Amino acid sequence: MRYLLLTSYDGTSFCGWQSQPGRRTVQGEMERAAEEFFGVKTKVTASGRTDAGVHALGQVVMLDGATSVPAQKLAASFNGLLPPDVRAVKSAAAPEGFDVTRGAKRKTYRYVAYCADSELPPYSRCCARLFRRPDLGKMREAARLLFGAHDFAAFRSAGFTSKTSVREIYEVEIAEREEPFGFFYQIEVTGNGFLYNMVRILSGELFAVGAGKEEGITRAFETGERKCLAKTMPPQGLTLVKVDYGVPLFGTEE
Amino acid sequence: MRYLLLTSYDGTSFCGWQSQPGRRTVQGEMERAAEEFFGVKTKVTASGRTDAGVHALGQVVMLDGATSVPAQKLAASFNGLLPPDVRAVKSAAAPEGFDVTRGAKRKTYRYVAYCADSELPPYSRCCARLFRRPDLGKMREAARLLFGAHDFAAFRSAGFTSKTSVREIYEVEIAEREEPFGFFYQIEVTGNGFLYNMVRILSGELFAVGAGKEEGITRAFETGERKCLAKTMPPQGLTLVKVDYGVPLFGTEE
Repeated sequence: MRYLLLTSYDGTSFCGWQSQPGRRTVQGEMERAAEEFFGVKTKVTASGRTDAGVHALGQVVMLDGATSVPAQKLAASFNGLLPPDVRAVKSAAAPEGFDVTRGAKRKTYRYVAYCADSELPPYSRCCARLFRRPDLGKMREAARLLFGAHDFAAFRSAGFTSKTSVREIYEVEIAEREEPFGFFYQIEVTGNGFLYNMVRILSGELFAVGAGKEEGITRAFETGERKCLAKTMPPQGLTLVKVDYGVPLFGTEE
Repeated sequence: MRYLLLTSYDGTSFCGWQSQPGRRTVQGEMERAAEEFFGVKTKVTASGRTDAGVHALGQVVMLDGATSVPAQKLAASFNGLLPPDVRAVKSAAAPEGFDVTRGAKRKTYRYVAYCADSELPPYSRCCARLFRRPDLGKMREAARLLFGAHDFAAFRSAGFTSKTSVREIYEVEIAEREEPFGFFYQIEVTGNGFLYNMVRILSGELFAVGAGKEEGITRAFETGERKCLAKTMPPQGLTLVKVDYGVPLFGTEE
C-alpha cells in the first residue's frame, strides 16, 4: 500500500531534507520512524528536497508499507515516532500510480525578511534580515518579469542539475507589514517547479531591486548568467508552503 | 551614567528574565555582557520580568556604568558580547531620575495561538496550539469585560505577590488570520501593568469562551477566585511587545 503524509518541519536543526550519512535530516528521521512503524527498512520520498535551515508547512511525502492502521490515522502514529520538529499533519492512501516527485503540478514557496535596527531574536529562525527598507513598487515591477515560462538557468546555484532549466512562474505576491520595531516583507511565489536555490536567488534579486539596484532579470534570462542577479538569500527565511497535484490528496479541508 | 537598552529576545532557551543561580536567564546574560563591557559587576534591571519561554520584542532595560562610548552606540557594543538569542535593538542615555520598573506607564503583550490538524513545527516556538477554532465574536464580547480598572486577583498565578492586584486594561485587540493548514489568533492587550501570568490566564479564558465555555470574567472579578477562569496558556505564545514610559526614550523612530 502506498501512503502520503502531509509533513511540516522546522528546518533549523536539520541538514536539509535529504538523507546524508552521519547528519540529521528530515528524510533520515522519517525513514527511521517508518522503519520503526512497519518493522522493515522503508524509503520515504518527498515532492522535492529542501536545504538546511529551510522550513516546510505542506511538504508531501510518500512511502510504501503494509499496516492495518487506517490511512487517515497514520499521521498520528508517525507523530508518536517523530521528533517534535517534524510533524505529519495529515495522512491518506495514495491515488493509483501516484508519483510524489513527478506528479507535483504547482509548488508555493514563501520568503520572509524584515528590516529593523538590529536582529530581532524572536524572528531569527524564520526570517532573514534586510539592511534597507525595499520599495514595494519596484519589487512588484521586477516580479512581473518573472511571470510565465522562462529559462531560469541564471537562477540556480551550482551543485545540482536538472534536465531542463525552463520553469513557469504563475504568481508572485509581495506584501509588507509593519510590526513594532520592524517592517516585514513576504514574497510568495507559485510555479510548476523550482531549480536549486531558485526562490532564494529570485528573492535576493527582488529585495536588491527594491533597495535601488538596477534589475538584472531581463539580462539573466538573455545570458543565463548567475552574476546578473543579486546574492542568494539565507535559508531561514524560506518555507515550502504547499504542493499541488491537481487532485485533492488529503480530503476537502486541505 | 544611566543607560537604557531596548532589548529583544527569543525566550525559548532561557529560564525567564530573572537571574537564578546555575540557570541561563536573560538578566544573567546581560549582566555578564555588562560586566565584560564596563569591567565591573553591573546590575541590569528590566521593566518587568518575563517567564521561561516568553519572548520580548521591546523589553526596556536599565544599567549604570561609565564609558566613553556614546549612548547610541552602546547597543552595537553589547551585541558583540551577547548571545544571538538576545539583542540590544537600540540604546540611549536615561532621562534624569528614570526608573525602568516604576516608570512604565503602559505595556503591550501579544499572545498567538493557532488551530491546525497537528502541531506545525515552524510555529512551535512562538505560538500555542488550540484544539478548536474559537468564535471571534464571543472572544471580543468577553474581552470588553476586561476594559478599565479592575481587581485582577483571580487572574494571577500563585508564587509572586504585588502590593495591589488592581490593574487597568486600555485595549484588547483580537485578530484572526488564515494560513495554509491553520487558523491563527492573536490577542494584543495593553494595560498599565500585569500580574504574574495575567496575560496567559486572560488569553486562556478568551480562547475558552471562544470555544464555547461560559464566560467566567464577571464572576472572577466578584470573587477573586482563579478557578472561575480557564487554564493558563503555555508560555511560548506570549511576547512582551512594548513598554511605554510616556516619553520617547530612544528617539523618534521608536
